[in-house]
Amino acid sequence: MPISPDQQAEIDALRANPKPTLRAVSEGMEAHLYKAHDVLDHGFVRVIDYMGDDAAICQAARVSYGKGTKSVQNDEGLIRYLMRHWHSTPFEMCELKMHIKLPVFVARQWIRHRTANVNEYSARYSILDREFYIPEPSQLAAQSVVNNQGRGEALTAAESARVLEILKGDAAQCYDHYEEMITDTSDEEGGKQGLARELARMNLPANIYTQWYWKVDLHNLFHFLRLRADAHAQYEILVYADAICKVVADWVPAAYGAFEDYRLGGAVLSEKGLVCLRKMLAGEEVTQETSGMSKGEWREFLGVIE
Amino acid sequence: MPISPDQQAEIDALRANPKPTLRAVSEGMEAHLYKAHDVLDHGFVRVIDYMGDDAAICQAARVSYGKGTKSVQNDEGLIRYLMRHWHSTPFEMCELKMHIKLPVFVARQWIRHRTANVNEYSARYSILDREFYIPEPSQLAAQSVVNNQGRGEALTAAESARVLEILKGDAAQCYDHYEEMITDTSDEEGGKQGLARELARMNLPANIYTQWYWKVDLHNLFHFLRLRADAHAQYEILVYADAICKVVADWVPAAYGAFEDYRLGGAVLSEKGLVCLRKMLAGEEVTQETSGMSKGEWREFLGVIE
Amino acid sequence: MPISPDQQAEIDALRANPKPTLRAVSEGMEAHLYKAHDVLDHGFVRVIDYMGDDAAICQAARVSYGKGTKSVQNDEGLIRYLMRHWHSTPFEMCELKMHIKLPVFVARQWIRHRTANVNEYSARYSILDREFYIPEPSQLAAQSVVNNQGRGEALTAAESARVLEILKGDAAQCYDHYEEMITDTSDEEGGKQGLARELARMNLPANIYTQWYWKVDLHNLFHFLRLRADAHAQYEILVYADAICKVVADWVPAAYGAFEDYRLGGAVLSEKGLVCLRKMLAGEEVTQETSGMSKGEWREFLGVIE
Amino acid sequence: MPISPDQQAEIDALRANPKPTLRAVSEGMEAHLYKAHDVLDHGFVRVIDYMGDDAAICQAARVSYGKGTKSVQNDEGLIRYLMRHWHSTPFEMCELKMHIKLPVFVARQWIRHRTANVNEYSARYSILDREFYIPEPSQLAAQSVVNNQGRGEALTAAESARVLEILKGDAAQCYDHYEEMITDTSDEEGGKQGLARELARMNLPANIYTQWYWKVDLHNLFHFLRLRADAHAQYEILVYADAICKVVADWVPAAYGAFEDYRLGGAVLSEKGLVCLRKMLAGEEVTQETSGMSKGEWREFLGVIE
Repeated sequence: MPISPDQQAEIDALRANPKPTLRAVSEGMEAHLYKAHDVLDHGFVRVIDYMGDDAAICQAARVSYGKGTKSVQNDEGLIRYLMRHWHSTPFEMCELKMHIKLPVFVARQWIRHRTANVNEYSARYSILDREFYIPEPSQLAAQSVVNNQGRGEALTAAESARVLEILKGDAAQCYDHYEEMITDTSDEEGGKQGLARELARMNLPANIYTQWYWKVDLHNLFHFLRLRADAHAQYEILVYADAICKVVADWVPAAYGAFEDYRLGGAVLSEKGLVCLRKMLAGEEVTQETSGMSKGEWREFLGVIE
Repeated sequence: MPISPDQQAEIDALRANPKPTLRAVSEGMEAHLYKAHDVLDHGFVRVIDYMGDDAAICQAARVSYGKGTKSVQNDEGLIRYLMRHWHSTPFEMCELKMHIKLPVFVARQWIRHRTANVNEYSARYSILDREFYIPEPSQLAAQSVVNNQGRGEALTAAESARVLEILKGDAAQCYDHYEEMITDTSDEEGGKQGLARELARMNLPANIYTQWYWKVDLHNLFHFLRLRADAHAQYEILVYADAICKVVADWVPAAYGAFEDYRLGGAVLSEKGLVCLRKMLAGEEVTQETSGMSKGEWREFLGVIE
Repeated sequence: MPISPDQQAEIDALRANPKPTLRAVSEGMEAHLYKAHDVLDHGFVRVIDYMGDDAAICQAARVSYGKGTKSVQNDEGLIRYLMRHWHSTPFEMCELKMHIKLPVFVARQWIRHRTANVNEYSARYSILDREFYIPEPSQLAAQSVVNNQGRGEALTAAESARVLEILKGDAAQCYDHYEEMITDTSDEEGGKQGLARELARMNLPANIYTQWYWKVDLHNLFHFLRLRADAHAQYEILVYADAICKVVADWVPAAYGAFEDYRLGGAVLSEKGLVCLRKMLAGEEVTQETSGMSKGEWREFLGVIE
Repeated sequence: MPISPDQQAEIDALRANPKPTLRAVSEGMEAHLYKAHDVLDHGFVRVIDYMGDDAAICQAARVSYGKGTKSVQNDEGLIRYLMRHWHSTPFEMCELKMHIKLPVFVARQWIRHRTANVNEYSARYSILDREFYIPEPSQLAAQSVVNNQGRGEALTAAESARVLEILKGDAAQCYDHYEEMITDTSDEEGGKQGLARELARMNLPANIYTQWYWKVDLHNLFHFLRLRADAHAQYEILVYADAICKVVADWVPAAYGAFEDYRLGGAVLSEKGLVCLRKMLAGEEVTQETSGMSKGEWREFLGVIE
């Protein structure tokens, strides 16, 4: 339940007041503006502003004087061509600004994508809320034995319960102490000063929620989504990427369609893989041994073509 | 006269059709949208799209749930504070997209600013128009004798006339040859093939006009304007920067005001300069010899404080 | 005591084996290579590699065929000129790679500088060490009452003791639980699986140490240092910036000298400030009321000129 | 013949003077340092400096304390894994600085790659040499009729001769005029001032040579090479990319090998393409009509798998 009544009232106020503009307008995106899409237990993704639409991609690619679009079909063909041939600059002509609430350990992974603009809620300046990410029991899994950076089997019920007890207990205690440290009671008899916020924050664990404004162009957003809406991404960032995918599909349907086909659903084959593939299509048998690939590569290759 | 009747019709069509939006709207900027601001003899600057306004800068700085602005006065104070203390990320939350027509030698300087998105008219794909920058006689000046990369005294009328004759003659001849080379007459008796455009373009001099879509965030735009709206910039890029300054002043008046005061009109003093200044304010005499500065530095220092 | 005997042996091995190179060599920097400069209680800064020296800045500025340097004096003059006139690209021609160990809350601030390359120790893949930043008592201070994001008065001894007790206790407990959660005892009778590392890490507070390889060009490093070696920076990042300043001074002494004079020790005056200053130098009295500045600006202005 | 005896003497001097360093040294790259690799008729590529080697990629990926490499075989496996799974940051830990001489129209395409550092020879400050790219007759081709931005059939001998005559004639005349305009004869009787260089340069066609220092990290260099060492790139930039590929293969052989296999020689298949492929491997017949692809996509798909 990440939205308070006050926040809902702010959203309603913002949505109640359309104004005329001469800019490109995406109807699909107007429907999303300011609304909070829930992610995880306290997180959300909210669109705050956007620039451009499918037509704007074509307009820039053509460096058109006017609107620069031809038929919708023609535009979609151009967008697919641009995506297929790795043209990046026309997609950079669209921009998205979002307000996102997310656990700190997710934020730490997210910010590795450098080609974006970020304003994060400052824990030097402000006091963080008592909100921690506590996973659903179904999300608690053991360290993977095949993938060094992933999850394997689900924990048993008893193990899950113990983990949740720990996470909740430590979060509560650390936050209690955070609050105690920053509290200034110096105007009371026997009171104490409040520790500087920039110091006290160091006691907060990485599942506390933070929030930020994040602004990114469509090309770099697609790059982010390709990596983070992927099955190998950590679940806790993947759910944010999925929520953003839905929004982007409504904003720039043609570009998102091309992205889905060529990036999300597509795959890269190596030169070795192509050689094998051509042999296989010609009816030749190929094995890992004759492929020239390592076992890992071969397994991934089969994963793509089977 | 950079705008043709067809182009004016496209602009009028685009401006005739306001649509409702829930996004932040800058009234000052809506008035500029799509209109061509003439620059040099054939160039222009046109706003195609924008994201954000003064309030959006504050909203991001405060990571607000709602609109995030307080009083206009309060917002202006915050914006001035952010500018003064080199906060860059809130200004990055505004974005501007322009269509610009400019001589190639100006484009070559402009593109050195890398933190922007660009789609340029492709001379591999398309045929460039016969439009060359020919300076006003008043702009023709000799190589500066004090500044190795600037202009000095105006040329005499006779010298100017000779220069203009050369520029016009070579431009016309090179373009005639460009046209001749790319022309395909192979369907005529005794005809010839047309040279590939990607090759023929190499014959065109650097004063030919090109055009591009250029998109940049406000922080990086201010950086560009600080360097290019400066008296030391080459006149031919400075006039573009000046045209953009006027647009930005209408778009985000508070941010532009802070930029004018702290960047365009401000100055950096070195530690040595500050030491001298404090002595001078205390009534001490300071000379170049006692300042610890080189002659060049001292001259620039006096230029700031006198 | 951040360096273990094994680590010291690795450093010694790396330093024992000079090889010939034809590249530019900075003697001052060779002396630093691989050595760990202690920062805070468990952190360090180590130079792993560097590219270029003062002469390389001049060589690039002159686009020279050969070494491109003239006299050392001449080069220093050029470097000072470049710094004074905001030329950034020659400084980008030098590059520094460091290995840094730092608390997570410092890393979160640091990574906001996006124009750098980073490889961080992965807590999805690996297990973090039991090392937490526990401040010196002298560093424990109350929230500032004048600056919303800074420290004010020191805490009393009793208050400090209580804060340290909390920080140590919570760190120990959270780490114990982290270890417990990830421990896999499934091969024991009645054992349990180990929670995936990517999940368990969320229980670790922000004063745990992480480490990364950080690579940056000299221009962007100077920008980082200007903001983080500044008196307004949080102490815990300032000490890293100071340690890096010392290294850079040995690496590119002329460039660092210019940086110190024009950036670290210099100051920006606004247009309003310059107007006031010229009046004051002419003997006129100026007050905050007649300055056109806000109280905050006026206070900062006096801080610069007095 | 891009190298003059003076330049050769500078190269020899630079190569005659090895110095000891503790940094990572790539023997393969030391052999290239400073030497000019000829490209086109007057251009070259010269390595000026480099940072890192194959081992440095692994060291950063592992955030190692020491050298961080295991066996060469192990390292190569890691590098291939990183490349296959789109890990970019370890490759960013290597850096290359080159001195490049190239025609202006090539430079204009090149600079579109923004994630690099550039210092270009300034035609505001200096006088450009009389050196123009004049293509080999074998490179003169007609506009392609299938690809709007490429070359098709070779020109006939007569057509080629006419094109070369034009290119040479216009280059010579434009340069003569450039020289005439900038020449200052004001100390002679009846002499004239020299036009400012920043103005006179506008008369020079796009096949004049410029030069720059270009510095880039290995990840972004691979991105550049993937696009520019591709058969669809314009020949005049492709030859530069090829020259750089040879250098990189000697510098970081394992990384270059992975790049060749996964990027240069590999291919992306769309989701639609994968569906078709799986059908074909299962013995089903698939045609463009049943593939769901456009004609262009289908042609490209067959180009990959046949």
